[in-house]
Amino acid sequence: MDYKPGDLLKLINKPEDLRKLPESDLLRVCSDLRDYIIDIVSVNGGHFGASLGVVELTVALHYVFNTPFDQLVWDVGHQAYGHKILTGRKDSFHTNRIYKGISGFPKRSESEYDTFGVGHSSTSISAALGMAVASRIKGEKERQHIAVIGDGAMTAGLAFEGLNHGGVENSNLLVVLNDNCMSIDPNVGALKEYLTDITTSHTYNKVKDEVWKLLGVISRFGPNAQEIASNVENAIKTSLLKQSNFFESLRFRYFGPVDGHDVNRLVKVMNDLKDIPGPKILHCLTVKGKGYDLAEKDQTKWHAPGLFDKISGEIVKPAKSGPQAPKYQDVFGHSIVELAKLNPKIVGITPAMPSGCSLNIMMKEIPERAFDVGIAEQHAVTFSAGLATQGMIPFCNIYSSFMQRGYDQVVHDVALQNLHVVFCLDRGGLAGADGPTHHGAFDIAYFRCIPNMIVSAPMDEVELRNLMFTAQLESTNAPFSIRYPRGNGVTIDWRKAFQEIQIGKGRKICDGDEVAILTIGHPGNFAVQACQEMESEGINPAHFDMRFVKPIDEELLHQVFKKYKKILTVEDGCLMGGFGSAVIEFMADNSYNATVLRLGIPDRFIEHGEQKELYDECHFNSDAIKNAVRHLVDESVLV
Amino acid sequence: MDYKPGDLLKLINKPEDLRKLPESDLLRVCSDLRDYIIDIVSVNGGHFGASLGVVELTVALHYVFNTPFDQLVWDVGHQAYGHKILTGRKDSFHTNRIYKGISGFPKRSESEYDTFGVGHSSTSISAALGMAVASRIKGEKERQHIAVIGDGAMTAGLAFEGLNHGGVENSNLLVVLNDNCMSIDPNVGALKEYLTDITTSHTYNKVKDEVWKLLGVISRFGPNAQEIASNVENAIKTSLLKQSNFFESLRFRYFGPVDGHDVNRLVKVMNDLKDIPGPKILHCLTVKGKGYDLAEKDQTKWHAPGLFDKISGEIVKPAKSGPQAPKYQDVFGHSIVELAKLNPKIVGITPAMPSGCSLNIMMKEIPERAFDVGIAEQHAVTFSAGLATQGMIPFCNIYSSFMQRGYDQVVHDVALQNLHVVFCLDRGGLAGADGPTHHGAFDIAYFRCIPNMIVSAPMDEVELRNLMFTAQLESTNAPFSIRYPRGNGVTIDWRKAFQEIQIGKGRKICDGDEVAILTIGHPGNFAVQACQEMESEGINPAHFDMRFVKPIDEELLHQVFKKYKKILTVEDGCLMGGFGSAVIEFMADNSYNATVLRLGIPDRFIEHGEQKELYDECHFNSDAIKNAVRHLVDESVLV
Repeated sequence: MDYKPGDLLKLINKPEDLRKLPESDLLRVCSDLRDYIIDIVSVNGGHFGASLGVVELTVALHYVFNTPFDQLVWDVGHQAYGHKILTGRKDSFHTNRIYKGISGFPKRSESEYDTFGVGHSSTSISAALGMAVASRIKGEKERQHIAVIGDGAMTAGLAFEGLNHGGVENSNLLVVLNDNCMSIDPNVGALKEYLTDITTSHTYNKVKDEVWKLLGVISRFGPNAQEIASNVENAIKTSLLKQSNFFESLRFRYFGPVDGHDVNRLVKVMNDLKDIPGPKILHCLTVKGKGYDLAEKDQTKWHAPGLFDKISGEIVKPAKSGPQAPKYQDVFGHSIVELAKLNPKIVGITPAMPSGCSLNIMMKEIPERAFDVGIAEQHAVTFSAGLATQGMIPFCNIYSSFMQRGYDQVVHDVALQNLHVVFCLDRGGLAGADGPTHHGAFDIAYFRCIPNMIVSAPMDEVELRNLMFTAQLESTNAPFSIRYPRGNGVTIDWRKAFQEIQIGKGRKICDGDEVAILTIGHPGNFAVQACQEMESEGINPAHFDMRFVKPIDEELLHQVFKKYKKILTVEDGCLMGGFGSAVIEFMADNSYNATVLRLGIPDRFIEHGEQKELYDECHFNSDAIKNAVRHLVDESVLV
Repeated sequence: MDYKPGDLLKLINKPEDLRKLPESDLLRVCSDLRDYIIDIVSVNGGHFGASLGVVELTVALHYVFNTPFDQLVWDVGHQAYGHKILTGRKDSFHTNRIYKGISGFPKRSESEYDTFGVGHSSTSISAALGMAVASRIKGEKERQHIAVIGDGAMTAGLAFEGLNHGGVENSNLLVVLNDNCMSIDPNVGALKEYLTDITTSHTYNKVKDEVWKLLGVISRFGPNAQEIASNVENAIKTSLLKQSNFFESLRFRYFGPVDGHDVNRLVKVMNDLKDIPGPKILHCLTVKGKGYDLAEKDQTKWHAPGLFDKISGEIVKPAKSGPQAPKYQDVFGHSIVELAKLNPKIVGITPAMPSGCSLNIMMKEIPERAFDVGIAEQHAVTFSAGLATQGMIPFCNIYSSFMQRGYDQVVHDVALQNLHVVFCLDRGGLAGADGPTHHGAFDIAYFRCIPNMIVSAPMDEVELRNLMFTAQLESTNAPFSIRYPRGNGVTIDWRKAFQEIQIGKGRKICDGDEVAILTIGHPGNFAVQACQEMESEGINPAHFDMRFVKPIDEELLHQVFKKYKKILTVEDGCLMGGFGSAVIEFMADNSYNATVLRLGIPDRFIEHGEQKELYDECHFNSDAIKNAVRHLVDESVLV
């Protein structure tokens, strides 16, 4: 398909081209850029609202600053499509998020304009500060360093840590706060309320106006009074009002709020800011989805809507033949509501992912026991620990790759105290088009080494429900993690009655000869398919769904290692230290001697693509399982 | 030894006893409590300054609040000695931090008054908020929840995340900010400057005074003007000044600053605060080491001074027979200065541990390239990543157990981008008297699974220096971690010329028969000793110091597995997924068949004690190595 950029955008291959245009052209550049994003995302998919919201910011930043010499860091990065298009990737932009195509996020290996790879939120201030301090050490006094961060990302502790340090470093650091009141879902928390206050003048401006008005009255008393009034005004203006700002209290000079969609005004303000040394913040008000009416009106839905008809706004639903298995996340979302209705101790917690993990279902049905705490994984975990000390049973749902941010809290606040917190790790395994920042590759390895932690993964929807049921039983009373992948399960009729699963017990899927396949989680289905397909070859491996990585089912493993000398382990997680390693640890500790092949995510970062493409690349889909089994069988023929 | 509490403290076994006393007795209780802490810590060791600084706070909190029904959470917890003494542990306090004695930190299993186990900082607000929300859900409206947090701990992102959520939850949450301008070292960062401003009135109070003064002048213009001036004053007071506070902007009602050593005033203020619903913060000014003159004057030294003569203040140095091997941390501290003088790209970073990790040596000698970023592990890592993008070579020194807090940043910001950041993990392995919160048990497992990461551990001081040298070479150009333990090395003459080590290459310590011992890091010395001691028995195992867990020396392992059928691995880290697992992964992947015994930290949390006691308990000291080797040898006799 041929995508036609508008007349002005056509001329821009690099920001240098943009900077040659007169300011009066920038409005049209913005219009071209917005159209181009709509054209391509509507047909190719990807993140949508965020990039539309920063079109003017993007144009102004590249117009004013000397990129790539000046360092521009985008936080999270799903808003950087305009940036990509303006920085040499206009013609490849239709490959966005596609296997072997360009990444949906800024990526250092892709462009010198992508100064810092992102995907997870709230890193930009720290990264830009590092760059700014490096420039200072190197004596590059003119170099500018700009972090563009959303109000949602600003709630994470990492952003605050960056501000706290940045405020006392004398460096060329500009933080652009892109305030649209949204994460993927509406932003939450005290800081968001504060920003709204500044913007809507509930306190700050109201009081300012009140005082000004009164001072006006005073000045009617004559010249002397006028002078006094002016002195008061001055004192308030120069210090008190400045100090009365959250960011000023952290030693950032605060400017704004300004209209983030007025590109010419942005250019003027940014030009002024270039000459002001030290840490500073520019507060820009933007609208997520700006310029596409439907996206402005339902911002969560249009965060990443999939494909759509750009004229009618109709979202294209892939044609389905008959009923489909549900998404794992929705099984979680519905099941926690069922469980919470039965067990009043259950509480749901998500750090800013209510629609991503489907806790929004509980937030609607049982709002007093479901919490979106904002982008704050650390707090989500420790808050859960606090709840658990009082006998509540928190289900803390965090994507596998984001759980890396709450790791210390899991170790120190939950596991060490052996508190009854249930961790639901969505997006375990290869997450797909979001790529390496979002793959949940490491959780099995990093959770398995934590004492007291129960580590489980369901093979299908019914198992997920039963693990959730088991996790909340009073008798369980220990940290319990359940990891499952992005996307759909395999069971259409999934809403079965809950059944307790014995902790640490796997299950036999099928008996077999010669080779035993041990799987954990969803890839068990790949093994089922492989076994079916090999029947015709006369190869009949046994298959066991282990369910638990820890405690691992030693009784079952003894049976397996006694009977089989060829073992295949399959997991949707890193091979290094993962489920397969747990199996060979058992083998070594119990002096068994078998050939063990391990399939899973190899020891490198896996790029983006469809999940199926990545399973293929990593060699643990059903074809890879068949090949591995055949290899094991053949070997025996040779020996 | 018999410790005699003062006359009033003698009467107090539980806070109920304290609450029976008249307010007029509290000054004496504080005096008794302070004396008791000095008496015992001077003889037994432990944290000192922090607990002295909160004597009055401790007494006031237990006097005013109905503990343990009201939930009191101490942040970090090394200031909770007074709390322990008042809550049933007066008579066991002399066992503080001693093997099998009471813990140096609050611990749930030790007392119902210890509502939340701590050790790492900045968890208290999140935990107390969880408790407060649980009480709200349960309808316990009268229950109070108090987090006591230092200004140092307040700089960590987790604390901010807790405030951001707490500010919008309607719950009985009181945050007591114990502001002493210190972490272990002096506190740093913008928030600290801000708190100093509030306290010393540089802006806030100055402007307030100025405006007030001018309004006073206005009122001279007559009754009408007086009314106006009063209106202005009111408007400023009621809203603007409140809003001009960092905490108020996060929707916490702010009270203070108050003198944290005026126990009667504290009692009055806290009684008032009990009746104010919603989130609130009480800003208390305290002096670390209060009441012990030397400790007030040199607060870092007296954070945990070891044993001392309480009268003279002389710190007891253990008698040394001849020269001693240095602490690993000091080898780091001196070596980074040497390297930084040779390589202008080297930068040093510590999150609030300059004296703990000895980066203070570089901060003194090369201040422009050494950074204490405050308690902010996440930022320390991402800041390092930002520096590395500009060609700097950051040495980011973080204790192993604290690195858990920067885990996502290591994966997402450093390893994924393959940036040249050197991580020095001090306190790797069993840390000693600080106990389970501070043991560095998991780092080998959680770093080993990260692609691109080089994972190493030196066996002695010279190796540490050479690993540091190797890590900073231009040709290395990858994330490089070096972990070493708390305490002293083994080499007196350690300041040898730097030598490059080939990455991924181990070394042979000695040849041997039948059994091969593979060690990583400092426990290699236990193996050396074991080998020497077994010589007389005619047992001569080979010993290899692997140096690198990743990339593991496959060439060496091939040699070992070809020659030896009995392998012993030894590490000062968790067995689950650790170094030994890497060895058996190699064995399985290469179809070797050997008996592999793995020594290391078992899959449970290890309590506090001397390092030697814990090595003994965990069975990887030289005796345990000898037993394991004998077991392997005997087995062969049997087979």
